[in-house]
Amino acid sequence: MSTRTQRRRIQRISASGDGPAGARADLLAVEEPLEIRIGGSPLTVTMRTPGDDLDLASGFLFTEGLLSPAVDLRQVRMCDENVADATLEVSDLPSPAELERATDARRAQRNFLTTSACGVCGKESIDAIRVRSRYDVAADPLRIAPAVLSSLPDRLREAQRVFASTGGLHAAGLFTADGSLLVLREDVGRHNAVDKVIGWALRAGRLPLTGHILLVSGRASFELVQKAAVAGIPVLAAVSAPSSLAADLADEVGMTLVGFLRGTSMNAYTGVERLSGVPASA
Amino acid sequence: MSTRTQRRRIQRISASGDGPAGARADLLAVEEPLEIRIGGSPLTVTMRTPGDDLDLASGFLFTEGLLSPAVDLRQVRMCDENVADATLEVSDLPSPAELERATDARRAQRNFLTTSACGVCGKESIDAIRVRSRYDVAADPLRIAPAVLSSLPDRLREAQRVFASTGGLHAAGLFTADGSLLVLREDVGRHNAVDKVIGWALRAGRLPLTGHILLVSGRASFELVQKAAVAGIPVLAAVSAPSSLAADLADEVGMTLVGFLRGTSMNAYTGVERLSGVPASA
Repeated sequence: MSTRTQRRRIQRISASGDGPAGARADLLAVEEPLEIRIGGSPLTVTMRTPGDDLDLASGFLFTEGLLSPAVDLRQVRMCDENVADATLEVSDLPSPAELERATDARRAQRNFLTTSACGVCGKESIDAIRVRSRYDVAADPLRIAPAVLSSLPDRLREAQRVFASTGGLHAAGLFTADGSLLVLREDVGRHNAVDKVIGWALRAGRLPLTGHILLVSGRASFELVQKAAVAGIPVLAAVSAPSSLAADLADEVGMTLVGFLRGTSMNAYTGVERLSGVPASA
Repeated sequence: MSTRTQRRRIQRISASGDGPAGARADLLAVEEPLEIRIGGSPLTVTMRTPGDDLDLASGFLFTEGLLSPAVDLRQVRMCDENVADATLEVSDLPSPAELERATDARRAQRNFLTTSACGVCGKESIDAIRVRSRYDVAADPLRIAPAVLSSLPDRLREAQRVFASTGGLHAAGLFTADGSLLVLREDVGRHNAVDKVIGWALRAGRLPLTGHILLVSGRASFELVQKAAVAGIPVLAAVSAPSSLAADLADEVGMTLVGFLRGTSMNAYTGVERLSGVPASA
């Protein structure tokens, strides 16, 4: 049993009288708050599944636009089991806008809380929900065969031992163009799972994620497309449905968005030209 | 086609060469930002599916603890298709704490953004994520038969025409003790679906929801248990898994939490004494 699951006494009930019933132990996905600080000042609280917290904090700071070429993540460490503290470094002639953003972050004036499925909190208006990417996703020359995409959900599930035991965790997996799984992260919040993947890549010096595919176990929201775009990922595939705004944003940034990836079938919502052998009919 | 779905041209792809393939029209669940204002001042932005926006804004203000016996929701209206504005009224000898909270709300100093699955944004620390309920859920004498609970998911699904066509919407349904559906609300964000249900009840003068059952189509998080508790709902049932913190909070407030409600079977995590015919063994 890891810190990601918690054993709990439950009652199994059968309304029909058939099937197993009675008290038994069950595993629940752990949900706990993680406070993210910058230089000791609280920035946000996110409801997450413990584990890979440094990746989560790093990924959150990056995908929410708090880091830039002029504002570097110098260090991130746990100062308590539910508190991560990041040290930023402002370098190399930042622009006034970048400096202002970094200063704001250091002052931690943005004091907001994100929940288990929230990642764009703290913005001050509807316009501000867009985080601009420093990478040009549209220019990514990746081509991928639908047969390779079809193989990814099974690879993700095979790697998801916790999911099988609790049924309560979202997963995000980063794959290479030939379908190899680079990293898998899980969380009660789907945006946290994606932040953990991107934070892992950031800390490993792998950004931008040109030529990679991100697979998520659930639905694709606006927010997940945005996080993928900020990390330079050209293909986002989801096992379930995308939202209208997810498809709009993917279209705008030139990302390939695939949904309902199940068995050998899938829907391509945007960027069909990256899928080899598929005609880009109107 | 409602404002809740958007028609879009997609490519259906079959990697195996079998099955349907080619361009076709598909319906996507609409995701758009809703800004909630108090007295004209922006309070929060939530990513939601349009529809029942007055219920959503009212429910959000209530379940996030901005309303109290001394701070009443006088009016809520749409001042743009994506902007809801609420007028609060402070009355009847508020306590200093209540007055402070109302004043804070009026000044809209809490300026935060929630996403399609976020509802406890803007709190200033981990401690502050708890919103206290004014109702005593533990004292609710409701008893319900597991067979009645088993019948609820089918009734919810029958009422969910949009879900069937997009696969992208969460649902929340409020039921009476005999299993009758009072109200169904849908959204790309599960917390929004619950806020829409509770906002409907608030505006209809039905709070507290003593003796009612809330069913959600997905998982049960800490946040959903909290919203149900704030509305005085004694039984929360979920089609999928609860998190550890959801079970902890349900236990603490005396709520019955049922998960994996599928077919005639279910798991009871807390409050088994409300389920008639089920022994409350340790």
